[in-house]
Amino acid sequence: MDRGRLEAFTDGVFAVAITLLALDLSVAGPGHGSLAYQLGHHWPQFVAYLISFLTIGIIWVNHHALVRNIAKVDRVLLFLNLFLLLFVVLIPFATSTMASYLAQPGYDSHVAMAVYAGVFEGMAIAFSALFGWTLKEGRLHQPVPRHARRAAAGRFLAGNVPYLVAISVAFFTPAVSLGLIGAVALYYVFENTPAMSLAEAVPETPPST
Amino acid sequence: MDRGRLEAFTDGVFAVAITLLALDLSVAGPGHGSLAYQLGHHWPQFVAYLISFLTIGIIWVNHHALVRNIAKVDRVLLFLNLFLLLFVVLIPFATSTMASYLAQPGYDSHVAMAVYAGVFEGMAIAFSALFGWTLKEGRLHQPVPRHARRAAAGRFLAGNVPYLVAISVAFFTPAVSLGLIGAVALYYVFENTPAMSLAEAVPETPPST
Amino acid sequence: MDRGRLEAFTDGVFAVAITLLALDLSVAGPGHGSLAYQLGHHWPQFVAYLISFLTIGIIWVNHHALVRNIAKVDRVLLFLNLFLLLFVVLIPFATSTMASYLAQPGYDSHVAMAVYAGVFEGMAIAFSALFGWTLKEGRLHQPVPRHARRAAAGRFLAGNVPYLVAISVAFFTPAVSLGLIGAVALYYVFENTPAMSLAEAVPETPPST
Amino acid sequence: MDRGRLEAFTDGVFAVAITLLALDLSVAGPGHGSLAYQLGHHWPQFVAYLISFLTIGIIWVNHHALVRNIAKVDRVLLFLNLFLLLFVVLIPFATSTMASYLAQPGYDSHVAMAVYAGVFEGMAIAFSALFGWTLKEGRLHQPVPRHARRAAAGRFLAGNVPYLVAISVAFFTPAVSLGLIGAVALYYVFENTPAMSLAEAVPETPPST
Repeated sequence: MDRGRLEAFTDGVFAVAITLLALDLSVAGPGHGSLAYQLGHHWPQFVAYLISFLTIGIIWVNHHALVRNIAKVDRVLLFLNLFLLLFVVLIPFATSTMASYLAQPGYDSHVAMAVYAGVFEGMAIAFSALFGWTLKEGRLHQPVPRHARRAAAGRFLAGNVPYLVAISVAFFTPAVSLGLIGAVALYYVFENTPAMSLAEAVPETPPST
Repeated sequence: MDRGRLEAFTDGVFAVAITLLALDLSVAGPGHGSLAYQLGHHWPQFVAYLISFLTIGIIWVNHHALVRNIAKVDRVLLFLNLFLLLFVVLIPFATSTMASYLAQPGYDSHVAMAVYAGVFEGMAIAFSALFGWTLKEGRLHQPVPRHARRAAAGRFLAGNVPYLVAISVAFFTPAVSLGLIGAVALYYVFENTPAMSLAEAVPETPPST
Repeated sequence: MDRGRLEAFTDGVFAVAITLLALDLSVAGPGHGSLAYQLGHHWPQFVAYLISFLTIGIIWVNHHALVRNIAKVDRVLLFLNLFLLLFVVLIPFATSTMASYLAQPGYDSHVAMAVYAGVFEGMAIAFSALFGWTLKEGRLHQPVPRHARRAAAGRFLAGNVPYLVAISVAFFTPAVSLGLIGAVALYYVFENTPAMSLAEAVPETPPST
Repeated sequence: MDRGRLEAFTDGVFAVAITLLALDLSVAGPGHGSLAYQLGHHWPQFVAYLISFLTIGIIWVNHHALVRNIAKVDRVLLFLNLFLLLFVVLIPFATSTMASYLAQPGYDSHVAMAVYAGVFEGMAIAFSALFGWTLKEGRLHQPVPRHARRAAAGRFLAGNVPYLVAISVAFFTPAVSLGLIGAVALYYVFENTPAMSLAEAVPETPPST
């Protein structure tokens, strides 16, 4: 089994991306109004940081659950994983763009929010592709039984819906779109039965071999 | 046992956060006064770098001691760990904000210092939550005996106190608040019996299983 | 066998470099024209991000295939690997420089594109040197047979050609040069028989020892 | 044995620091003179990048050789290692400061060069402290024999000398100081018997236990 480097590289990218999120946090420094005012004025930055942090964290937890059950790493898996990382790496950019434009009036805030939700949708699609890869015979230590497979696939499709909705809503009320994405993140943190997660479909304990 | 990726991801975030601290170090470049003057004038940057570096380092050492004794990683632990990382990732931002405002007169330096101490307090709370998780039966290789548990809990509460004091003091004398946080860091580096650490409560050597 | 840290350090550098690529993505913020216009105007940024991301990803996949078969790490290998990383680390700089200048008229776009292609050529040379190191008796678990060796060497030389061509073409039509580099990346993603890769020359499964 | 996380965290910090070096590379963008001129004018950036990259790489190779022979990680070792990382993390800052001021006339270039050499000297001292820690009975798998110990200690002291000289020379001719540091880096890359390295003092192969 050769999952080690796949996990190490992925963990590295997740770790850097989640930490770079905070690079977007900044205040203009002395001479640009009181610090308290600046911190209050930049609230979208902090909300955006929190939501993006949680979402990256959740995807990492789910990636963890998915990959630990994989029996054999092949070239296709490596590239599907890169496809996922392509969107993970975009999150700090999408977050800072969204945070700068959220409080702007008019069309700009719509576009910024749609880009933000779009990056998350891209990540969800890539994660679904990774999940799809695992379904073929012999790729998991403990194959997912047919009925669990159908249920998991259903949940996966369901996991894409909120982001698609968020993209659409972004063009009307960006704040509602952001609230939706935040609600999805909180839901996955506090739910024990994560719809988006593979945790149940994929048995928690790989065989001791 | 499946602590590997938890540790790898956590180490990655700590490593990036501790290295990004130095991104806040900068001088204005040629044409903004002599370099020696600039380096001297920016002393809060360097003091802040040192204190934040040591504090992240100490938390990493303690995390190391805590996690190596964990017998089984579950979803709750993963999210408690993310809660800790949420504050770790904020440290470079809090450090640079504090360093820019520390020498400012008036209220701004108070707010900046309170934010800095507040991030450390958040980290201490999150670390306490991680510690609390380990106390339940069967989660550690070698359970912490009841008396050591009480002592460790006491030390943990004690570990929160200096940061709470630092937050309060920040609104009166920010420099004293910074000195207090620095003293806490030095104390933990040179003490062999770290109050905040789990090193004693949690046996150093996990069973060879 | 002691490949662990070589892989860990390399994975770390690749992970940071690939994530820093997205730091170059940015918009000027509110007050600099509509966001949609800015995103459209900065298209070279996004194309450059995609191509550099894919190329780093491919090199990582190939590095993975090469190193997992290595039987013994020596000091020369460590420095050859550093030589590879020297170019990997330059990619974010080369990417952002190329993206800023690509749409400029005249000579600047030629120089920027040549620097970009040059960094990739440097990476290809360093990877060839790593491959060359593996050819000596006893350095791989499963030595590459003589005929596969010749074929692999041929493919390696072939892998250098597109970047050399891209450097030359940069001085005439930078956009064609960029298209060529992008085509190479896409070719390696979708081909199962990667010319640049060692995947075939180096047996996929190291002996179970 | 529990070296795993020490190595993982250290590798992470080295990987981030070595990659951040290239963040200092930048050109002013379109409208600030021809790109070719800018690249030529910023030559100190590129030389500084190369020297700092090599030096971090060498320290990583030596850290690798030292730590793999360590039998037992204790709290003192963890903090000595943090002390080393404190300087490693400062290298990107010292490099960019040095590169900006090297071509300036007068005292500023002296100070900048002295800071650069000083960070390397700090790193050399910290590495010597790590080496000193390994000398006590029972800390290495294969203890260093007394005669090799004396030789290694001599080489270590010798390894500090060039940086001390570079600090002094910085106050007269910064370029010579930079040349000296570069020569040290090249020396260690091409020498098989690195004076600064522990490679010989510490047996290459840890016992198979």
